[in-house]
Amino acid sequence: MANKLQSTPRADGFRMPGEFEAHKGCWMIWPERTDNWRNGGKPAQKAFVEVAEAIAKYEEVTMCVSQTQYMAAKEMLSSNIRVVEMSNDDAWMRDVGPTFVVNDQGDVRGVDWRFNAWGGLVDGLYFPWDKDDQVAKKVCEIENIDYYSLESFVLEGGSIHSDGDGTAIVTEACLLDESRNPDLSKEEIENTLKEYLNVDKVLWLPNGIYLDETNEHVDNIVHYCAPGVLTLAWTDDETDPQYPLSKAAFDYLSNEKDAKGRTLEIHKIHIPDEVLITKEESEGVDSVDGTLPREEGDRQAASYANFYIANNAVILPLFGDEKHDNQAQETLQKIFPDRDIVGIYAREIILGGGNIHCITQQQPLG
Amino acid sequence: MANKLQSTPRADGFRMPGEFEAHKGCWMIWPERTDNWRNGGKPAQKAFVEVAEAIAKYEEVTMCVSQTQYMAAKEMLSSNIRVVEMSNDDAWMRDVGPTFVVNDQGDVRGVDWRFNAWGGLVDGLYFPWDKDDQVAKKVCEIENIDYYSLESFVLEGGSIHSDGDGTAIVTEACLLDESRNPDLSKEEIENTLKEYLNVDKVLWLPNGIYLDETNEHVDNIVHYCAPGVLTLAWTDDETDPQYPLSKAAFDYLSNEKDAKGRTLEIHKIHIPDEVLITKEESEGVDSVDGTLPREEGDRQAASYANFYIANNAVILPLFGDEKHDNQAQETLQKIFPDRDIVGIYAREIILGGGNIHCITQQQPLG
Repeated sequence: MANKLQSTPRADGFRMPGEFEAHKGCWMIWPERTDNWRNGGKPAQKAFVEVAEAIAKYEEVTMCVSQTQYMAAKEMLSSNIRVVEMSNDDAWMRDVGPTFVVNDQGDVRGVDWRFNAWGGLVDGLYFPWDKDDQVAKKVCEIENIDYYSLESFVLEGGSIHSDGDGTAIVTEACLLDESRNPDLSKEEIENTLKEYLNVDKVLWLPNGIYLDETNEHVDNIVHYCAPGVLTLAWTDDETDPQYPLSKAAFDYLSNEKDAKGRTLEIHKIHIPDEVLITKEESEGVDSVDGTLPREEGDRQAASYANFYIANNAVILPLFGDEKHDNQAQETLQKIFPDRDIVGIYAREIILGGGNIHCITQQQPLG
Repeated sequence: MANKLQSTPRADGFRMPGEFEAHKGCWMIWPERTDNWRNGGKPAQKAFVEVAEAIAKYEEVTMCVSQTQYMAAKEMLSSNIRVVEMSNDDAWMRDVGPTFVVNDQGDVRGVDWRFNAWGGLVDGLYFPWDKDDQVAKKVCEIENIDYYSLESFVLEGGSIHSDGDGTAIVTEACLLDESRNPDLSKEEIENTLKEYLNVDKVLWLPNGIYLDETNEHVDNIVHYCAPGVLTLAWTDDETDPQYPLSKAAFDYLSNEKDAKGRTLEIHKIHIPDEVLITKEESEGVDSVDGTLPREEGDRQAASYANFYIANNAVILPLFGDEKHDNQAQETLQKIFPDRDIVGIYAREIILGGGNIHCITQQQPLG
């Protein structure tokens, strides 16, 4: 009994909680498209399994899998992970799944944004994306929860973060790009976020991570760890193209307050050394007209900010860069003294264009 | 968290309840194969919608729909019916869904039989049937319930009835057919049923309904209404090929007792006048090599026994044969004085080879 609602979360007293609030569980999608994941998706599938199994130690995980891969995925996953059939165009549950909202009575609802593969016919990453656009509805149907469905407003879950306490954070590079909602002003976009996330203030970073193919999603550069507390992807190398982007974000956040008037506590986490696609990796990807190519030497938008906060744990991408991997783990352990920090080597995920936060979507406990 | 169990329901204290016991809800599959359902499946879909909406007045209904038809089905169904994606080879949830079992603590589990499209390569009704054979697992995964999976034992849910109190009823025509489990003796088959349904006695009717393409499933000729109480499809016309089949069933049941020593109370329900496929109906079905043809003049295995017992209601197929339709409704109202008897014109369902009981599967409340 999933009803499509005509009102808004704000009107109904629902808000998007912080990711650090209690979860019922986590949703993921099984990767399989061979024009994005090398070697038939097999290395990525192993990485997704590692992420799913790590999260499943802390909360329920549901893996959504196409019919083609259903039995193979069940075989590769332990039986404490729920496997449900769901068609998809790729594996980015953060961006195609529902944004869950809750009220004070413990009810949970979904928000079903319009999805256009990060840019539609302007600069979308593949075509078509109709199956991805149905994922949010299907998740809500399985869970029997009502949902708000925006007919035309384009947004991906990775382009927003909420502190659950009145403030959201986004990037101008993504939300104001002509490939999303070109007919809406910044104010109109902000008002839509205020209505559907039920926040009073939206923080607008200028940019995200250099070369991030999502038009620089906010979830790859910062992460809310608690109201008023953020991690920020950083580099000390002033010659790195990432430097001016992170510096601008730092300066902006240092001079802003959130909806509750808090000064923001910013924890810099240094990005890893450059992650470049190797010849072998590039050659494992099917070359298809209309899908973003994966070429040898391409720099990936690798960032530790793309972690997932589970109940009692943080699932953190690692890149085999010992120095920065360790720094990231240490910083997060200080921010989250009561949570396990679980690092997972995530090269195979970043090769597909995102990371652990991009492939997960938390369902709050309500 | 749906674990595949290595034991048996009997060993674990689980039993198959009677259909008349309390339900959590009902599962169905959306019909769409154009080589079985005429006119692209549209008339059948309307009939399935009527059945789903009727049941949904009394208990939750989940409709499983392929990706191709997902959005169309959502549009045709009211929002109180849950719609989940599930690939399939056809729409017979009774036969491909799990057989649910319960214990005294209110736990529910599934039994996942091997499915071979009613006869595999011997006399199966279509090829392939791999998607159908995955349906039981997928339902258990969605519901997060553990299940028993039989690696090789072939059975369809429509070929068994349970009184929930130690007795099951089947037909020899189906269960002993060489197309199901040719390497097992009658005794071995009976022992498997005793283990997985947790019954002490199996009643073996010789036959089912004349021309029933399932090798004469028991659910088209009799229905348990309560322990010791059965309806029996009947005809007074001694020249009808159905007569000797129903007569033999009546004689057998009249001389048997159930596991608890009860004499059986048998309520005859006269079958409808012959249902023959019209030229127009036949011409609406795609003719495909390997799928049972639907030819003009073919007699359908129409029977009122193929009803579905929902919480507080009985959903009964009608055939536009006023006399027998009314008789069936009256008889069932007497057997079930406290339930609504809801008749649904089911010609479009019987044209596909089954009826309301065949397209539904109850999930007990536990």
